[in-house]
Amino acid sequence: MKDYVIIVAGGSGSRMNSTLPKQFLELKGRPILCHTIEQFYQYSPEIEIIVVLSGEYLQFWDDLRRTIGFAIPHRLVAGGKERFFSVKNGLAIIDDARVIGIHDAVRPMVSVRTIERCYHTAADHKTAVPVFAINDTLREVEGGISKTVDRNKFRIVQTPQCFDASLLKAAFEQEYKPEFTDDATVVEFYGEKINLIEGNKENIKITTPEDLELAHAILSVENRLR
Amino acid sequence: MKDYVIIVAGGSGSRMNSTLPKQFLELKGRPILCHTIEQFYQYSPEIEIIVVLSGEYLQFWDDLRRTIGFAIPHRLVAGGKERFFSVKNGLAIIDDARVIGIHDAVRPMVSVRTIERCYHTAADHKTAVPVFAINDTLREVEGGISKTVDRNKFRIVQTPQCFDASLLKAAFEQEYKPEFTDDATVVEFYGEKINLIEGNKENIKITTPEDLELAHAILSVENRLR
Repeated sequence: MKDYVIIVAGGSGSRMNSTLPKQFLELKGRPILCHTIEQFYQYSPEIEIIVVLSGEYLQFWDDLRRTIGFAIPHRLVAGGKERFFSVKNGLAIIDDARVIGIHDAVRPMVSVRTIERCYHTAADHKTAVPVFAINDTLREVEGGISKTVDRNKFRIVQTPQCFDASLLKAAFEQEYKPEFTDDATVVEFYGEKINLIEGNKENIKITTPEDLELAHAILSVENRLR
Repeated sequence: MKDYVIIVAGGSGSRMNSTLPKQFLELKGRPILCHTIEQFYQYSPEIEIIVVLSGEYLQFWDDLRRTIGFAIPHRLVAGGKERFFSVKNGLAIIDDARVIGIHDAVRPMVSVRTIERCYHTAADHKTAVPVFAINDTLREVEGGISKTVDRNKFRIVQTPQCFDASLLKAAFEQEYKPEFTDDATVVEFYGEKINLIEGNKENIKITTPEDLELAHAILSVENRLR
């Protein structure tokens, strides 16, 4: 019984003013995706790594990883139209898992400790997602009007979202719903309670050029931050 | 009619594992407070700067700014027990303002553009607070159970929170309520609509050692980020 991670890369890169999808953009000399894969390999060299890419980029990445000599083993799977279907495609090639984590390809700054906490909790309690508390004031906007809400009641959710393998597979047998914004929501709709684990705040999702700059900055001091 | 900023420094520094309050901690060779003051001076050398400090640190800071040769002019005011009373003490020495902004001393990474947007909007529309959208999934926690909520309905709120001077003064004549978590809430309770303006995400509140590391990192690439 092994642990798996499904690294999901969806986007077309349009928000980055770049033709290249975000996971391939350069961060400290290498594609973002390399950093992301490496964090899971650092957590455990035994973990099985599956990378889900948009079909049109499978060959591109396979060539690129050879060219740059990126040697961490991982299997490639073609993605679907929505994240839900991408994850489902990844799940389809897994048959001997204990815990499966699902992680965004564009979150290269996940700490090994966050990964550890999530996999360990999911092994013991079936579900685990990394979160952090909100330090700033939070406002709810509705029809042009906003009001302050109690920030202590809210948590920002990141990835890897980790689950007991049988539970996750069963949950993804449900019919797709637009409300499935993340994997925990799918499992929640299936009726399972989601355990919230302490994440690391710098584990940001790189979606804008500013995020990429911030990631560069964070990796410059990474040894102190992790 | 001048524009003012009240820079509020409250904390005792206990969460930083440091005896020194956070606003005095070193960031790129100088106290955090110097960076914060400088951003407003960069926005406009004409802006009137009032710094509210816990009474026990007024002499300390006055000595420190001389020692390090920090020359940007600003007036010092003793703080109160709650933020509300600290702001009120700052307001008490203002009598000729057009717009008053209130800013956290421990947000040195506010961009000049964010300051500009807030002051300009408040001058035209009475209120302005900088916010940014949430990129990650958001969960609401209640009694040990959490559920995904629609992140598009929420905004993270930062500072400077800027207001028409007469409106702000009138709002702070209200009796103190524990619900007054930020200055916009005070003005909101007084009955005025709050305008939400685009902020800059890296304008974080430095409250933990990790935040300070992140701030170091951000300032290393500041020219590209601002």
